[in-house]
Amino acid sequence: MTAARTVLKTKVGIVGGGPAGLMLSHMLAKSGIENIVVEKRDHETIRTTHRAGILEHGSVRMLTEGGVSDRVLVDGYKHDGIDLRFGGESHRIDFEDLVGESVWLYPQNEVFVDLAAARERDGGDVRYAVSNTEVLDQTTSVPKIRFTDQEGADFEIHCDILVGADGSQGICKRSIPKELRTDNFIEYPFAWFGILTEAPPSAPELIYANSDHGFALISQRNDNVQRMYFQSDPNEDPEAWSEEQIWNELQRRVDGPDGFELKRGPIFEKTVLKFRSYVCEPLRYGNMFLAGDAGHTVPPTGAKGLNLALADVAVLFEAIDSYYATKNSGLLDGYSEKALKRVWRAQNFSYWMTSMLHTRPDATPFERKRALGELNGVVSSRHGQAYLAEAYTGWPGQ
Amino acid sequence: MTAARTVLKTKVGIVGGGPAGLMLSHMLAKSGIENIVVEKRDHETIRTTHRAGILEHGSVRMLTEGGVSDRVLVDGYKHDGIDLRFGGESHRIDFEDLVGESVWLYPQNEVFVDLAAARERDGGDVRYAVSNTEVLDQTTSVPKIRFTDQEGADFEIHCDILVGADGSQGICKRSIPKELRTDNFIEYPFAWFGILTEAPPSAPELIYANSDHGFALISQRNDNVQRMYFQSDPNEDPEAWSEEQIWNELQRRVDGPDGFELKRGPIFEKTVLKFRSYVCEPLRYGNMFLAGDAGHTVPPTGAKGLNLALADVAVLFEAIDSYYATKNSGLLDGYSEKALKRVWRAQNFSYWMTSMLHTRPDATPFERKRALGELNGVVSSRHGQAYLAEAYTGWPGQ
Repeated sequence: MTAARTVLKTKVGIVGGGPAGLMLSHMLAKSGIENIVVEKRDHETIRTTHRAGILEHGSVRMLTEGGVSDRVLVDGYKHDGIDLRFGGESHRIDFEDLVGESVWLYPQNEVFVDLAAARERDGGDVRYAVSNTEVLDQTTSVPKIRFTDQEGADFEIHCDILVGADGSQGICKRSIPKELRTDNFIEYPFAWFGILTEAPPSAPELIYANSDHGFALISQRNDNVQRMYFQSDPNEDPEAWSEEQIWNELQRRVDGPDGFELKRGPIFEKTVLKFRSYVCEPLRYGNMFLAGDAGHTVPPTGAKGLNLALADVAVLFEAIDSYYATKNSGLLDGYSEKALKRVWRAQNFSYWMTSMLHTRPDATPFERKRALGELNGVVSSRHGQAYLAEAYTGWPGQ
Repeated sequence: MTAARTVLKTKVGIVGGGPAGLMLSHMLAKSGIENIVVEKRDHETIRTTHRAGILEHGSVRMLTEGGVSDRVLVDGYKHDGIDLRFGGESHRIDFEDLVGESVWLYPQNEVFVDLAAARERDGGDVRYAVSNTEVLDQTTSVPKIRFTDQEGADFEIHCDILVGADGSQGICKRSIPKELRTDNFIEYPFAWFGILTEAPPSAPELIYANSDHGFALISQRNDNVQRMYFQSDPNEDPEAWSEEQIWNELQRRVDGPDGFELKRGPIFEKTVLKFRSYVCEPLRYGNMFLAGDAGHTVPPTGAKGLNLALADVAVLFEAIDSYYATKNSGLLDGYSEKALKRVWRAQNFSYWMTSMLHTRPDATPFERKRALGELNGVVSSRHGQAYLAEAYTGWPGQ
């Protein structure tokens, strides 16, 4: 005997309770559009999973002006620039001076905490730790989400609009028949070896370092914990590296005549982060729409992932809101094309930053010197700097 | 019996009488530094070899303010922008508005005519149609150039400084022992199929077109003759193409909803232009210095070749002039490094323009869409446009 499947009716069913899903849920609720979010992980797991954290000014505004939380302004760190380091020399890209904007260092899990708290405060319907999630009937007027809740009870959400915000490994994208989607992707012959360390910041802003030994990123988390990465083989075993070896590897990638030295401390997390560039086209299947990593992923160089997810949400919210306000589906029909325009622009930026800063294992001397010629060209030109700064802080017109 | 080899003594011996060699000769002579130029081609051959012709503002100033000729300002065409065309739409990059500079359409063979006339007018010693050219003793204080003149007489130039300005196939670069030079290069899996046609201009400025069928460049020569190119296989046989086929191929690469149509006419020259990116490091061997194509070549996208040669000449002239004025070789010793900085920047620009505008035969859908994302990103951003405009018209500080 099978227990009955409880039917839940709502307007928008959202698969995925990460920042994209919760932000959309929050915005819809503020606009009076009821919705339900289902998320397979439990709250604690998401909260404690360390993820990158550079927010564009537009993303910060979505959190603050959107009524989620002002905590980013209090606990986050405003960064007015980054440092491009190559040939052992640092070149600051001064965002504030170049384009009048900044970014905020504020980890993705803190964004999640703020959004989850806002949904709870506003009585949002967010169901964590669900299992057996399935999406069906996407091309009908009543798309559905099936899931089993934490207590083992089975549910079926009937909605008008289904949103897949379930990340790069999610089920929604995969539910689109292969012949109806194009999977655009490239892989990279390197990964990021990342560490978390208990140490004071080595620098006030992020340092993107191109060196003869490969790329390194010197990043921060807060006053006591720092995040750093270095380009590695995708199959590197983090456990094979001693703390001493890691620090030496990081240090030699930022060495220079200025004597810059990393501040070392105990390393309490080591991971090898593989990545690729991926875009699903279109970001729609019937009445199901994809947002964030569910539809596209970028390499981490340039910190576009979370910001691009929130940009999708802004476009999708406007489309859904307009649909309920006017019963005209024009904006919904245009969602995929509009979102993809920014996605491809961000894909290019991420690819550019990645290519310019990393060294491919098979790079010829020409390629290596061309990349240095490019870095030199960017920092020697105010226009080049501004082009980078504008992309990094977020293009206007989100 | 061998006829005697006549010795000619001079300060600077220059191999190559193209624009780089003649411009250097002209500048040195103006500064009272005697020099001799030898060139294997005859005057008529150089004069009638059609070559590209976009001059940066700095190159124009070298010709006009340097006392060569003002003809570029009279017979050349000032272009205040270019057109980037993709997705069937045109996007003008307005150089004048963006960076306050322009370029001039003025074919390379006209630059040669002006320089050759200036050398003749000033009594310069330029020997055309020489053969058996050799360079020797580059690492001694008296480097030498041997050659046979048009009448079959043998000569040996004894000089203080030897300049290799003898183009990409020249002998000077090859005279550097392999273990003392690095040949940096990349090849491209495509070439340019170029035509000259008797027709009115199809557009007032150059059109750089990225299309699903590959790249095309709609360029001009004068009011009656036009230059156009389309991306082709490097092994394409120009004779296998009828005029009709060529026009159809060009047209489909610029087709768009705006109905833009090429103005057709009889085609009187067809060539397949292969190219690669190449840099010799260093640009020096003892007392021999390389300038222009003799030291580096760029793909034609972005029109940097001739301009880069003249930029080398400006740096090299300053170094030689300073050497004779002060007997201090500091600037000469720094020539290679200083020139290479601009060379690598220009290599990157040429590579960037080439990559962004062409489609590799093996390009994945991701690569194709990323390139369109990049073009869209450039034209959507004033900073991106200005970054391109500044590079195209010529970076300041030649």
